Amino acid sequence: MLRLYDFLESGNGYKVRLLLTQLGIPFERIELDITRGESRTPDFLARNPNGRIPTLELEDGSTLAESNAIQWYLAEGSELLPAERMERAQVLQWMFFEQYSHEPYIAVVRFWAHNGQLEGREAEVEERRRRGYEALFVMEQHLGTRDFFVGGRYSIADIALYAYTHVCDEGGFDLAGCPSVRSWLERVASQPGHIPITQA
Amino acid sequence: MLRLYDFLESGNGYKVRLLLTQLGIPFERIELDITRGESRTPDFLARNPNGRIPTLELEDGSTLAESNAIQWYLAEGSELLPAERMERAQVLQWMFFEQYSHEPYIAVVRFWAHNGQLEGREAEVEERRRRGYEALFVMEQHLGTRDFFVGGRYSIADIALYAYTHVCDEGGFDLAGCPSVRSWLERVASQPGHIPITQA
Repeated sequence: MLRLYDFLESGNGYKVRLLLTQLGIPFERIELDITRGESRTPDFLARNPNGRIPTLELEDGSTLAESNAIQWYLAEGSELLPAERMERAQVLQWMFFEQYSHEPYIAVVRFWAHNGQLEGREAEVEERRRRGYEALFVMEQHLGTRDFFVGGRYSIADIALYAYTHVCDEGGFDLAGCPSVRSWLERVASQPGHIPITQA
Repeated sequence: MLRLYDFLESGNGYKVRLLLTQLGIPFERIELDITRGESRTPDFLARNPNGRIPTLELEDGSTLAESNAIQWYLAEGSELLPAERMERAQVLQWMFFEQYSHEPYIAVVRFWAHNGQLEGREAEVEERRRRGYEALFVMEQHLGTRDFFVGGRYSIADIALYAYTHVCDEGGFDLAGCPSVRSWLERVASQPGHIPITQA
Protein backbone atom coordinates (compact mmCIF):
# COMPACT_ATOMS: atom_id res chain seq x y z
CA MET A 1 0.00 0.00 0.00
CA LEU A 2 1.17 3.56 -0.63
CA ARG A 3 2.41 5.36 2.47
CA LEU A 4 2.00 9.14 2.82
CA TYR A 5 4.16 11.06 5.28
CA ASP A 6 1.92 13.97 6.12
CA PHE A 7 1.03 16.74 8.60
CA LEU A 8 -2.67 17.40 9.01
CA GLU A 9 -2.41 21.20 9.06
CA SER A 10 -0.34 21.29 5.86
CA GLY A 11 -2.05 22.37 2.67
CA ASN A 12 0.77 20.69 0.76
CA GLY A 13 -0.06 17.41 2.48
CA TYR A 14 -3.78 18.04 1.94
CA LYS A 15 -3.28 18.22 -1.84
CA VAL A 16 -2.07 14.61 -1.87
CA ARG A 17 -4.62 13.35 0.69
CA LEU A 18 -7.45 14.91 -1.30
CA LEU A 19 -6.19 13.59 -4.63
CA LEU A 20 -5.65 10.03 -3.34
CA THR A 21 -9.18 10.08 -1.93
CA GLN A 22 -10.71 11.39 -5.16
CA LEU A 23 -8.80 8.81 -7.20
CA GLY A 24 -9.97 6.05 -4.84
CA ILE A 25 -6.40 4.95 -4.08
CA PRO A 26 -5.96 3.42 -0.60
CA PHE A 27 -3.05 4.70 1.45
CA GLU A 28 -1.53 4.61 4.90
CA ARG A 29 -1.02 8.03 6.45
CA ILE A 30 1.92 8.70 8.79
CA GLU A 31 1.48 11.95 10.72
CA LEU A 32 4.70 13.86 11.42
CA ASP A 33 4.53 16.98 13.59
CA ILE A 34 6.81 19.27 11.62
CA THR A 35 6.64 21.90 14.39
CA ARG A 36 8.47 19.40 16.63
CA GLY A 37 11.16 18.47 14.11
CA GLU A 38 9.64 15.11 13.20
CA SER A 39 10.48 15.66 9.51
CA ARG A 40 14.15 16.23 10.37
CA THR A 41 14.95 12.92 12.06
CA PRO A 42 17.66 10.69 10.52
CA ASP A 43 14.96 8.11 9.75
CA PHE A 44 12.87 10.58 7.76
CA LEU A 45 15.84 12.35 6.13
CA ALA A 46 16.75 8.96 4.65
CA ARG A 47 13.38 9.09 2.87
CA ASN A 48 13.51 12.77 1.92
CA PRO A 49 16.89 14.50 2.34
CA ASN A 50 15.10 17.87 2.03
CA GLY A 51 13.18 17.05 5.24
CA ARG A 52 9.70 18.01 4.12
CA ILE A 53 6.23 16.56 4.02
CA PRO A 54 4.39 15.40 2.03
CA THR A 55 6.58 12.51 0.98
CA LEU A 56 5.09 9.49 -0.75
CA GLU A 57 6.58 6.03 -0.25
CA LEU A 58 5.79 3.46 -2.92
CA GLU A 59 5.35 -0.27 -2.33
CA ASP A 60 8.99 -0.90 -3.37
CA GLY A 61 10.27 1.56 -0.75
CA SER A 62 11.22 4.30 -3.20
CA THR A 63 10.10 7.79 -2.25
CA LEU A 64 8.85 10.88 -4.02
CA ALA A 65 8.80 14.40 -2.56
CA GLU A 66 7.23 17.76 -3.51
CA SER A 67 3.43 17.89 -3.32
CA ASN A 68 2.88 18.82 -6.96
CA ALA A 69 5.32 16.22 -8.30
CA ILE A 70 3.47 13.61 -6.22
CA GLN A 71 0.17 14.88 -7.65
CA TRP A 72 1.51 14.55 -11.18
CA TYR A 73 2.70 10.99 -10.51
CA LEU A 74 -0.64 9.92 -9.05
CA ALA A 75 -2.96 11.69 -11.51
CA GLU A 76 -1.22 10.55 -14.72
CA GLY A 77 -3.76 8.71 -16.87
CA SER A 78 -6.75 9.97 -14.86
CA GLU A 79 -9.29 12.68 -15.67
CA LEU A 80 -7.55 15.00 -13.22
CA LEU A 81 -4.54 15.46 -15.52
CA PRO A 82 -5.28 16.54 -19.12
CA ALA A 83 -3.86 14.55 -22.00
CA GLU A 84 -3.26 17.45 -24.41
CA ARG A 85 0.30 18.81 -24.52
CA MET A 86 -0.41 22.53 -23.99
CA GLU A 87 -2.99 21.85 -21.29
CA ARG A 88 -0.51 19.64 -19.45
CA ALA A 89 2.06 22.43 -19.58
CA GLN A 90 -0.57 24.88 -18.30
CA VAL A 91 -1.28 22.59 -15.36
CA LEU A 92 2.44 22.73 -14.55
CA GLN A 93 2.48 26.51 -15.08
CA TRP A 94 -0.17 26.97 -12.38
CA MET A 95 1.48 24.46 -10.04
CA PHE A 96 4.82 26.31 -10.33
CA PHE A 97 2.95 29.60 -9.84
CA GLU A 98 1.47 28.09 -6.68
CA GLN A 99 4.83 27.06 -5.24
CA TYR A 100 6.71 30.24 -6.21
CA SER A 101 4.21 33.12 -6.12
CA HIS A 102 1.45 31.89 -3.78
CA GLU A 103 2.51 29.36 -1.12
CA PRO A 104 5.53 31.29 0.24
CA TYR A 105 3.18 34.15 1.12
CA ILE A 106 -0.28 32.72 1.82
CA ALA A 107 0.78 29.44 3.43
CA VAL A 108 3.71 30.86 5.38
CA VAL A 109 1.67 33.67 6.98
CA ARG A 110 -0.98 31.10 7.95
CA PHE A 111 1.74 28.88 9.46
CA TRP A 112 3.06 31.81 11.51
CA ALA A 113 -0.48 32.67 12.64
CA HIS A 114 -1.11 29.07 13.72
CA ASN A 115 2.11 28.96 15.68
CA GLY A 116 2.04 32.38 17.38
CA GLN A 117 4.90 33.68 15.23
CA LEU A 118 3.35 36.82 13.74
CA GLU A 119 4.63 39.10 16.48
CA GLY A 120 8.07 40.60 16.06
CA ARG A 121 8.10 40.21 12.26
CA GLU A 122 5.41 42.76 11.36
CA ALA A 123 7.29 44.19 8.35
CA GLU A 124 7.84 40.76 6.87
CA VAL A 125 4.20 39.79 7.43
CA GLU A 126 3.06 42.96 5.69
CA GLU A 127 5.35 42.25 2.70
CA ARG A 128 4.16 38.65 2.46
CA ARG A 129 0.51 39.78 2.68
CA ARG A 130 1.16 42.22 -0.18
CA ARG A 131 2.64 39.49 -2.34
CA GLY A 132 -0.08 37.03 -1.35
CA TYR A 133 -2.73 39.46 -2.55
CA GLU A 134 -0.83 39.86 -5.82
CA ALA A 135 -1.15 36.09 -6.33
CA LEU A 136 -4.84 36.14 -5.40
CA PHE A 137 -5.52 38.89 -7.93
CA VAL A 138 -3.71 36.96 -10.69
CA MET A 139 -6.06 34.06 -9.85
CA GLU A 140 -9.09 36.38 -9.75
CA GLN A 141 -8.28 37.73 -13.20
CA HIS A 142 -7.82 34.24 -14.66
CA LEU A 143 -11.00 32.86 -13.08
CA GLY A 144 -13.08 35.86 -14.17
CA THR A 145 -13.72 34.09 -17.48
CA ARG A 146 -13.15 30.44 -16.49
CA ASP A 147 -14.68 27.81 -14.21
CA PHE A 148 -11.38 26.02 -13.55
CA PHE A 149 -7.70 26.82 -14.10
CA VAL A 150 -7.00 24.66 -17.16
CA GLY A 151 -9.10 23.26 -20.00
CA GLY A 152 -12.50 24.11 -18.53
CA ARG A 153 -12.48 21.25 -16.06
CA TYR A 154 -11.30 20.27 -12.58
CA SER A 155 -7.64 19.14 -12.47
CA ILE A 156 -4.66 18.87 -10.14
CA ALA A 157 -3.94 22.55 -10.91
CA ASP A 158 -7.15 23.38 -9.04
CA ILE A 159 -6.21 21.10 -6.15
CA ALA A 160 -2.77 22.75 -5.93
CA LEU A 161 -4.25 26.24 -5.69
CA TYR A 162 -7.27 25.31 -3.58
CA ALA A 163 -5.15 23.84 -0.77
CA TYR A 164 -4.00 27.13 0.76
CA THR A 165 -6.43 29.56 -0.88
CA HIS A 166 -9.47 28.09 0.88
CA VAL A 167 -7.86 28.66 4.29
CA CYS A 168 -6.17 31.97 3.46
CA ASP A 169 -8.38 33.75 6.05
CA GLU A 170 -6.40 31.87 8.74
CA GLY A 171 -3.43 34.02 7.68
CA GLY A 172 -5.51 37.20 7.62
CA PHE A 173 -6.29 37.32 3.89
CA ASP A 174 -9.74 38.56 2.89
CA LEU A 175 -11.31 37.33 -0.37
CA ALA A 176 -13.96 40.10 -0.42
CA GLY A 177 -12.32 41.58 -3.52
CA CYS A 178 -12.06 38.19 -5.28
CA PRO A 179 -15.61 37.04 -6.14
CA SER A 180 -14.42 34.76 -8.95
CA VAL A 181 -12.00 33.03 -6.59
CA ARG A 182 -14.81 32.54 -4.07
CA SER A 183 -17.10 30.96 -6.69
CA TRP A 184 -14.26 28.70 -7.81
CA LEU A 185 -13.60 27.59 -4.22
CA GLU A 186 -17.25 26.49 -4.04
CA ARG A 187 -16.96 24.60 -7.33
CA VAL A 188 -13.85 22.77 -6.13
CA ALA A 189 -15.45 21.92 -2.77
CA SER A 190 -18.47 20.42 -4.58
CA GLN A 191 -16.43 17.93 -6.63
CA PRO A 192 -17.17 14.22 -6.03
CA GLY A 193 -15.11 12.74 -3.22
CA HIS A 194 -14.03 16.10 -1.78
CA ILE A 195 -12.75 16.00 1.80
CA PRO A 196 -11.93 18.91 4.13
CA ILE A 197 -8.34 19.73 5.11
CA THR A 198 -9.12 18.60 8.67
CA GLN A 199 -9.88 15.03 7.53
CA ALA A 200 -7.09 12.52 7.96
CA MET B 1 8.52 30.83 -34.95
CA LEU B 2 8.51 30.54 -31.16
CA ARG B 3 9.04 33.82 -29.35
CA LEU B 4 10.81 33.90 -25.98
CA TYR B 5 10.38 36.89 -23.66
CA ASP B 6 13.63 36.83 -21.75
CA PHE B 7 16.17 38.77 -19.67
CA LEU B 8 19.78 37.87 -20.31
CA GLU B 9 20.87 37.90 -16.65
CA SER B 10 18.03 35.59 -15.60
CA GLY B 11 18.84 31.97 -14.85
CA ASN B 12 15.16 31.18 -15.34
CA GLY B 13 15.34 32.62 -18.84
CA TYR B 14 18.65 30.83 -19.45
CA LYS B 15 17.03 27.43 -18.77
CA VAL B 16 14.72 27.93 -21.74
CA ARG B 17 17.38 29.52 -24.00
CA LEU B 18 19.75 26.63 -23.31
CA LEU B 19 17.08 23.97 -23.83
CA LEU B 20 15.83 25.48 -27.10
CA THR B 21 19.41 25.59 -28.35
CA GLN B 22 20.14 21.99 -27.35
CA LEU B 23 16.90 20.80 -28.94
CA GLY B 24 17.76 22.72 -32.12
CA ILE B 25 14.49 24.68 -32.07
CA PRO B 26 14.76 28.13 -33.67
CA PHE B 27 13.29 31.02 -31.68
CA GLU B 28 13.07 34.78 -31.60
CA ARG B 29 14.30 36.30 -28.34
CA ILE B 30 12.71 39.49 -26.96
CA GLU B 31 14.84 41.07 -24.22
CA LEU B 32 12.89 42.76 -21.42
CA ASP B 33 14.83 44.65 -18.76
CA ILE B 34 12.94 43.52 -15.66
CA THR B 35 14.89 45.97 -13.51
CA ARG B 36 13.18 48.77 -15.45
CA GLY B 37 9.67 47.36 -15.21
CA GLU B 38 9.57 46.08 -18.80
CA SER B 39 7.79 42.88 -17.66
CA ARG B 40 5.04 44.95 -15.99
CA THR B 41 3.77 46.89 -19.00
CA PRO B 42 0.11 46.44 -20.04
CA ASP B 43 1.34 44.87 -23.27
CA PHE B 44 3.37 42.22 -21.49
CA LEU B 45 0.84 41.64 -18.69
CA ALA B 46 -1.64 40.66 -21.42
CA ARG B 47 0.80 37.84 -22.26
CA ASN B 48 1.63 36.86 -18.67
CA PRO B 49 -0.61 38.37 -15.96
CA ASN B 50 2.01 37.38 -13.37
CA GLY B 51 4.47 39.77 -15.06
CA ARG B 52 7.50 37.50 -15.21
CA ILE B 53 10.02 36.25 -17.71
CA PRO B 54 10.60 33.78 -19.22
CA THR B 55 7.33 33.64 -21.12
CA LEU B 56 7.05 31.58 -24.30
CA GLU B 57 4.72 32.68 -27.09
CA LEU B 58 3.66 29.97 -29.54
CA GLU B 59 2.96 30.48 -33.24
CA ASP B 60 -0.79 30.77 -32.52
CA GLY B 61 -0.23 33.60 -30.03
CA SER B 62 -0.93 31.53 -26.92
CA THR B 63 1.57 31.95 -24.10
CA LEU B 64 3.14 29.77 -21.44
CA ALA B 65 4.86 31.00 -18.28
CA GLU B 66 7.09 29.49 -15.55
CA SER B 67 10.53 28.35 -16.71
CA ASN B 68 10.13 24.72 -15.69
CA ALA B 69 6.64 24.36 -17.22
CA ILE B 70 8.08 25.76 -20.46
CA GLN B 71 10.94 23.26 -20.22
CA TRP B 72 8.47 20.40 -19.78
CA TYR B 73 6.45 21.56 -22.79
CA LEU B 74 9.50 21.82 -25.03
CA ALA B 75 11.32 18.67 -23.92
CA GLU B 76 8.35 16.27 -24.12
CA GLY B 77 9.25 13.44 -26.51
CA SER B 78 12.97 14.28 -26.49
CA GLU B 79 15.86 12.56 -24.71
CA LEU B 80 15.93 15.39 -22.17
CA LEU B 81 12.67 14.25 -20.54
CA PRO B 82 12.52 10.58 -19.45
CA ALA B 83 9.62 8.40 -20.59
CA GLU B 84 9.29 6.27 -17.45
CA ARG B 85 6.59 7.35 -14.97
CA MET B 86 8.64 7.50 -11.75
CA GLU B 87 11.59 9.17 -13.49
CA ARG B 88 9.26 11.81 -14.91
CA ALA B 89 7.91 12.49 -11.42
CA GLN B 90 11.49 12.71 -10.11
CA VAL B 91 12.29 15.31 -12.77
CA LEU B 92 9.34 17.33 -11.48
CA GLN B 93 10.41 16.74 -7.87
CA TRP B 94 13.79 18.35 -8.56
CA MET B 95 12.25 21.18 -10.58
CA PHE B 96 9.86 22.00 -7.71
CA PHE B 97 12.79 21.72 -5.29
CA GLU B 98 14.61 24.23 -7.47
CA GLN B 99 11.78 26.77 -7.45
CA TYR B 100 10.90 26.39 -3.76
CA SER B 101 14.11 25.55 -1.89
CA HIS B 102 16.90 26.85 -4.17
CA GLU B 103 15.96 29.76 -6.45
CA PRO B 104 14.43 32.02 -3.74
CA TYR B 105 17.77 31.96 -1.91
CA ILE B 106 20.54 31.47 -4.46
CA ALA B 107 19.02 33.45 -7.34
CA VAL B 108 17.57 36.24 -5.23
CA VAL B 109 20.85 36.98 -3.41
CA ARG B 110 22.63 37.04 -6.80
CA PHE B 111 19.98 39.46 -8.11
CA TRP B 112 20.49 41.75 -5.11
CA ALA B 113 24.28 41.58 -5.57
CA HIS B 114 23.96 42.48 -9.27
CA ASN B 115 21.73 45.42 -8.47
CA GLY B 116 23.54 46.89 -5.45
CA GLN B 117 20.74 45.82 -3.09
CA LEU B 118 22.69 43.80 -0.51
CA GLU B 119 23.25 46.74 1.81
CA GLY B 120 20.61 47.47 4.41
CA ARG B 121 19.19 43.92 4.39
CA GLU B 122 22.13 42.09 5.99
CA ALA B 123 19.99 39.86 8.23
CA GLU B 124 17.83 38.77 5.31
CA VAL B 125 20.88 38.08 3.13
CA GLU B 126 22.39 35.96 5.90
CA GLU B 127 19.15 33.96 6.27
CA ARG B 128 18.90 33.43 2.51
CA ARG B 129 22.54 32.35 2.34
CA ARG B 130 21.88 29.82 5.10
CA ARG B 131 18.92 28.37 3.23
CA GLY B 132 20.78 28.45 -0.07
CA TYR B 133 23.56 26.35 1.43
CA GLU B 134 20.95 23.90 2.74
CA ALA B 135 19.77 23.43 -0.86
CA LEU B 136 23.34 23.04 -2.12
CA PHE B 137 24.05 20.35 0.46
CA VAL B 138 20.89 18.43 -0.50
CA MET B 139 22.24 18.51 -4.07
CA GLU B 140 25.73 17.49 -2.90
CA GLN B 141 24.34 14.48 -1.05
CA HIS B 142 22.27 13.37 -4.06
CA LEU B 143 25.11 13.84 -6.54
CA GLY B 144 27.60 12.01 -4.32
CA THR B 145 26.48 8.74 -5.90
CA ARG B 146 25.05 9.95 -9.22
CA ASP B 147 26.25 11.64 -12.41
CA PHE B 148 22.95 13.45 -13.06
CA PHE B 149 19.81 14.17 -11.04
CA VAL B 150 17.45 11.60 -12.56
CA GLY B 151 17.89 8.26 -14.31
CA GLY B 152 21.65 8.47 -14.77
CA ARG B 153 21.47 10.88 -17.68
CA TYR B 154 21.23 14.56 -18.52
CA SER B 155 17.67 15.94 -18.38
CA ILE B 156 15.72 19.16 -17.86
CA ALA B 157 16.10 18.57 -14.09
CA ASP B 158 19.82 19.20 -14.55
CA ILE B 159 19.17 22.31 -16.63
CA ALA B 160 16.77 23.64 -13.96
CA LEU B 161 19.36 23.27 -11.19
CA TYR B 162 22.38 24.26 -13.26
CA ALA B 163 20.95 27.65 -14.18
CA TYR B 164 21.55 29.38 -10.85
CA THR B 165 23.99 26.93 -9.23
CA HIS B 166 26.74 27.59 -11.77
CA VAL B 167 26.64 31.33 -11.02
CA CYS B 168 26.01 31.04 -7.26
CA ASP B 169 29.41 32.65 -6.59
CA GLU B 170 27.93 35.90 -7.93
CA GLY B 171 25.71 35.86 -4.82
CA GLY B 172 28.60 35.01 -2.52
CA PHE B 173 28.10 31.24 -2.34
CA ASP B 174 31.22 29.09 -2.23
CA LEU B 175 31.12 25.53 -3.61
CA ALA B 176 34.37 24.50 -1.88
CA GLY B 177 32.40 22.09 0.33
CA CYS B 178 30.46 20.64 -2.60
CA PRO B 179 32.90 18.63 -4.78
CA SER B 180 30.14 16.48 -6.29
CA VAL B 181 28.18 19.58 -7.31
CA ARG B 182 31.33 20.99 -8.94
CA SER B 183 31.93 17.80 -10.93
CA TRP B 184 28.30 17.77 -12.01
CA LEU B 185 28.53 21.41 -13.16
CA GLU B 186 31.41 20.37 -15.43
CA ARG B 187 29.43 17.43 -16.81
CA VAL B 188 26.46 19.69 -17.60
CA ALA B 189 28.68 22.31 -19.24
CA SER B 190 30.23 19.63 -21.47
CA GLN B 191 26.91 18.48 -22.96
CA PRO B 192 26.50 18.90 -26.74
CA GLY B 193 25.10 22.28 -27.69
CA HIS B 194 25.78 23.89 -24.32
CA ILE B 195 25.79 27.71 -24.31
CA PRO B 196 26.83 30.09 -21.52
CA ILE B 197 24.28 32.21 -19.65
CA THR B 198 25.75 35.30 -21.30
CA GLN B 199 24.85 34.09 -24.81
CA ALA B 200 21.65 35.52 -26.28
